Amino acid sequence: MKTGNCLIAQSGGPTAAINATLAGVYSSAKKNSAIEKIYGGRNGIEGILKGNLVDLEEILEIGNNLKILKTTPSSFLGSCRYKLKGEQEFEKLFQLFEEKNIKFFFYIGGNDSMDTILQFKKYQEKKGGDITFIGVPKTIDNDLTCIDHTPGFGSAAKYIATTIKEIAADATVYSMKSAMVVEVMGRNAGWLALSAGLARDSKDNCVADLIYLPEYAFDKEKFLKDIEVAFETKEQIVVVVSEGLKNTEGKLLSESESRDSFGHSRLGGVARYIEEIITESMAIRVRSIELSVLQRAASHCLSATDVNESFMLGEKAVELASNGENGVMVTTVRTEGLVYGVELGCTDVERIANKEKTVPDSYMNEAKNQISQEGIDYIRPLIQGEVYVDMEHGVPKHLILREFL
Amino acid sequence: MKTGNCLIAQSGGPTAAINATLAGVYSSAKKNSAIEKIYGGRNGIEGILKGNLVDLEEILEIGNNLKILKTTPSSFLGSCRYKLKGEQEFEKLFQLFEEKNIKFFFYIGGNDSMDTILQFKKYQEKKGGDITFIGVPKTIDNDLTCIDHTPGFGSAAKYIATTIKEIAADATVYSMKSAMVVEVMGRNAGWLALSAGLARDSKDNCVADLIYLPEYAFDKEKFLKDIEVAFETKEQIVVVVSEGLKNTEGKLLSESESRDSFGHSRLGGVARYIEEIITESMAIRVRSIELSVLQRAASHCLSATDVNESFMLGEKAVELASNGENGVMVTTVRTEGLVYGVELGCTDVERIANKEKTVPDSYMNEAKNQISQEGIDYIRPLIQGEVYVDMEHGVPKHLILREFL
Repeated sequence: MKTGNCLIAQSGGPTAAINATLAGVYSSAKKNSAIEKIYGGRNGIEGILKGNLVDLEEILEIGNNLKILKTTPSSFLGSCRYKLKGEQEFEKLFQLFEEKNIKFFFYIGGNDSMDTILQFKKYQEKKGGDITFIGVPKTIDNDLTCIDHTPGFGSAAKYIATTIKEIAADATVYSMKSAMVVEVMGRNAGWLALSAGLARDSKDNCVADLIYLPEYAFDKEKFLKDIEVAFETKEQIVVVVSEGLKNTEGKLLSESESRDSFGHSRLGGVARYIEEIITESMAIRVRSIELSVLQRAASHCLSATDVNESFMLGEKAVELASNGENGVMVTTVRTEGLVYGVELGCTDVERIANKEKTVPDSYMNEAKNQISQEGIDYIRPLIQGEVYVDMEHGVPKHLILREFL
Repeated sequence: MKTGNCLIAQSGGPTAAINATLAGVYSSAKKNSAIEKIYGGRNGIEGILKGNLVDLEEILEIGNNLKILKTTPSSFLGSCRYKLKGEQEFEKLFQLFEEKNIKFFFYIGGNDSMDTILQFKKYQEKKGGDITFIGVPKTIDNDLTCIDHTPGFGSAAKYIATTIKEIAADATVYSMKSAMVVEVMGRNAGWLALSAGLARDSKDNCVADLIYLPEYAFDKEKFLKDIEVAFETKEQIVVVVSEGLKNTEGKLLSESESRDSFGHSRLGGVARYIEEIITESMAIRVRSIELSVLQRAASHCLSATDVNESFMLGEKAVELASNGENGVMVTTVRTEGLVYGVELGCTDVERIANKEKTVPDSYMNEAKNQISQEGIDYIRPLIQGEVYVDMEHGVPKHLILREFL
């Protein structure tokens, strides 16, 4: 079998578990006799193009850095949203791979990153070479095909469900009719909004009274009826909306052209839009909140299931490379039966690249404003277990690359 | 010694530890032979006026409800922001106290609530009676006088410091000049913004590059210079602002009349205002985020020190009542020496009511844009220790009053 150096990089939006995957790839590469040096590429292919590599062993072999890395939020190596442009950039990258004797390239990312792996593989088929390209999935959006769920999603879902329970408890504090609108990420796929459905009270009712996904056109009249119904049994309601909600004409609500009573166009996100249309229709107190980057960075509220799987997927990537696979992405398949479990496998990146998996109809109720039991059964296992992160001076310890440069 | 029933209520904005205090008062009252029934008053004096009392023993003696209460966010009994109006309301309340044989009244709240205690005591002095009125402090704002720090502040500070570390890690992910603006609560006192100063890297540098408190007039020109300096050594910066920031004319920035390039007046909070003035002065990516109610409700990120003290203050309140104190608020005094500790005591509510404690000058650096070592030494002990809350189906368990009614 060939021997050589390995290069690991991260791409796309970060997750709270993406560094667990990096730790998994690193740990397994470190033990693999075919792999000599282990490089990290900074800021994905954008940084690699500029020759920005770091020696990961110099950092991760110190103290318990590898353990801290596993629960550090953000992408330790930095990220990019860069699409390779033209033959020249490929040439430059392959030249660097040769100079650094890179024989194994692991790219942790979403569907765009899998496209990059695909382009690398195709380029090599044309020009010749013996580099192994493996994709390792990550995204809080859970929108990759051919995989039961994506690493990073479980932790984001746990954070969202936890936070929405807290917001709902807070919302009941004053005796007055009120609505709290919570905006979560998800442009085309509503997985994160769906996960608000796991915020349940002791009688197993969802504390998020209404949940709206981008999979379904947002109908203002229907929505106003929905909240009227919700107010029939509760004084304070919580509404969860995806950032990608679109109106019946397919236009993003966050880009809504409607004007306020002063004739100004509305600014801000979906939550603010929803806040305004409620305020216009009823005299109640409405607040809105955007979970923003917290939902992808909250490593103080990790799902143990997610972190463990993320690490194992990283290890599996090295195993696949060892077994001679190329141009594949590591996958999870949920095992059958009542007890949750996954089997790791792989699939051609071609089947993943540039595709999006949305929420199936059956995961929502008929009115498309609440999770269904099938939806609960799908997400619930992914948020199980807590991770007690290393603390220092009362706050979590993180491993930050900048501090080593 | 007199015997009779006790009434506990909560008032003002909730904290993540206010129910730990309720649990403390309840536990101690339950053991006290002078106290017979233990009532909870719903929605503070506003609900009590309507006769909304609940029998706390019926709820808290079931299973481990008392334990879950301790880590439930929001005010379990509900809250109010109600100022008693006129003799008639006092009469009505004292009549209810008599009907229900209330001899001990514990009010968990901030400076307005201490004023209520004061008014009760004065009314009783005028009209006669033998009810004991004790105030128990709470507020994330840490703005009460005569107390080293307020229960609830430590958990809010821990959440803010933790979250800002995560936001700062996330902010570095792309290789581009950017600023993240984080808005925290605090209208007149900047304690919560100051606590962002506890978000530190492994070299003990604050990851919040700039911190602005409402204690100091916000000077736009100085601010723009501050961020220029910050960008000299970093590509991505994090700016933390108090919601109560005012300009040099004393006007709230959130109510700023300045207009955007379309001539519309600016909407939204301080973070959005800061976002806009940065965007107008330099071509970089700016995002803003409001921690909103999360900072007072995040019971998944409690400070063990805060929760334990909050519970003990509740217990102490009952002890003070037993000892014949009346019209006092429980206090903490920090013990001298290198190891952190507090002694519990009490002070006349008159000394607390309607007063605000702001951040001392010496807790900030000279430029008034960063915490000083003295500030760190003050807050750091308050965020120590983690609380592992009871979980169910992957999310924290809460005790919600509505589910018992």
